[in-house]
Amino acid sequence: MPPYQIAVIGGTGPQGKGLAYRFVRSGHRVTIGSRSAERARNTAADIARRVGETASVSGADNAAAAGAADVVLLAVPYKGHAELVASLSARLAGKVLISCVNPLGFDKRGPYGLDVADGSAAEEAQRLAPEAKLAGAFHHLSAVNLWSEAELLDHEDVLVCADDEQAKAVAVELARVVTGRAGIDAGALRLARHLEPLTATLIGINQRYKVRSGIRVAGLEHPR
Amino acid sequence: MPPYQIAVIGGTGPQGKGLAYRFVRSGHRVTIGSRSAERARNTAADIARRVGETASVSGADNAAAAGAADVVLLAVPYKGHAELVASLSARLAGKVLISCVNPLGFDKRGPYGLDVADGSAAEEAQRLAPEAKLAGAFHHLSAVNLWSEAELLDHEDVLVCADDEQAKAVAVELARVVTGRAGIDAGALRLARHLEPLTATLIGINQRYKVRSGIRVAGLEHPR
Repeated sequence: MPPYQIAVIGGTGPQGKGLAYRFVRSGHRVTIGSRSAERARNTAADIARRVGETASVSGADNAAAAGAADVVLLAVPYKGHAELVASLSARLAGKVLISCVNPLGFDKRGPYGLDVADGSAAEEAQRLAPEAKLAGAFHHLSAVNLWSEAELLDHEDVLVCADDEQAKAVAVELARVVTGRAGIDAGALRLARHLEPLTATLIGINQRYKVRSGIRVAGLEHPR
Repeated sequence: MPPYQIAVIGGTGPQGKGLAYRFVRSGHRVTIGSRSAERARNTAADIARRVGETASVSGADNAAAAGAADVVLLAVPYKGHAELVASLSARLAGKVLISCVNPLGFDKRGPYGLDVADGSAAEEAQRLAPEAKLAGAFHHLSAVNLWSEAELLDHEDVLVCADDEQAKAVAVELARVVTGRAGIDAGALRLARHLEPLTATLIGINQRYKVRSGIRVAGLEHPR
């Protein structure tokens, strides 16, 4: 895998920052994107301090970050997601766009998946950026684990859904720098509607069991 | 855990038969339910042959099976689910009803979760059997592994969602006879709408990777 120029849109949030850190420490060049270029630069500086002299990481506003990248990771809250993707649409044309956006709600009964008219945030992004090469991935990783000193999150899996073969291949390979294993081909992009809200279940488990949970697909080590 | 009298509605199908086998071999008394009492008895005989002299397993039509049970497991295809649950409603009153029903569709792009007006099959069952004590559980276990000689499916987890505390507790404990570990409290019954269609992703993974996949929740062994 060549080093990519990766933009992490929403890279100042915990999921985006943690994934950016993992990408940077494995040798990719990352631009943190944020509405505020200054906050993006602060997060980039945090990551550079953690990774050390080899770090290639910078900060910019979301549009500049997306414009300069080969691969764009969408790691924004679902609130405001549609407007942001629409505003970046031209800059995303022809690029691999990986969404780890989780449309979640919270009420007194706990976290739950929001109803999304397009089925999922990933499918919404595909509608709003029709020339982007979409994959859904990296939804279920513990943000705390991502930003930890752990070499790999090798007890967790990355599930990848995509219709575009290039986007799927990039996300499957990028997963290696996080978990030490290729991401799992979980099927068509439409399955993002089941993968995204699974995060609600994991957050509830974290609250009840006082853990940092993730998903592992059992049985892969024993082909039939 | 006392031995329960468990009815497995749809117990002639692979998921129901496999779970029934696991329950019987751990000492529970099971009645296989089916539209055809004869087919139910044939499946019960298959299980008895596998388990041996200690087996307490019989077959009956679905209504008789449900009527005689303390705990009812719904393991039917989603097609016909609503009519069946409505027909059993009176017999389910006051009983723990565990649904492992997966509303799935299949087309040329693979398996996917069906849209269910109530959100999930489990919530549909609760609406149609309002006095039953509902839990959703056992959705993701490989039917082939269930019907295997393996002592335990200890690489897989059982995720349990329920609003009723008794139903949740019974399903969490019953999981032990399958996986060797308590089921995981995955939250409120409404989360069944995310757990059920996850089976579509697993079936797709089985097809692509030639495996028998299941779900494991990572991170539970390390409380914060």
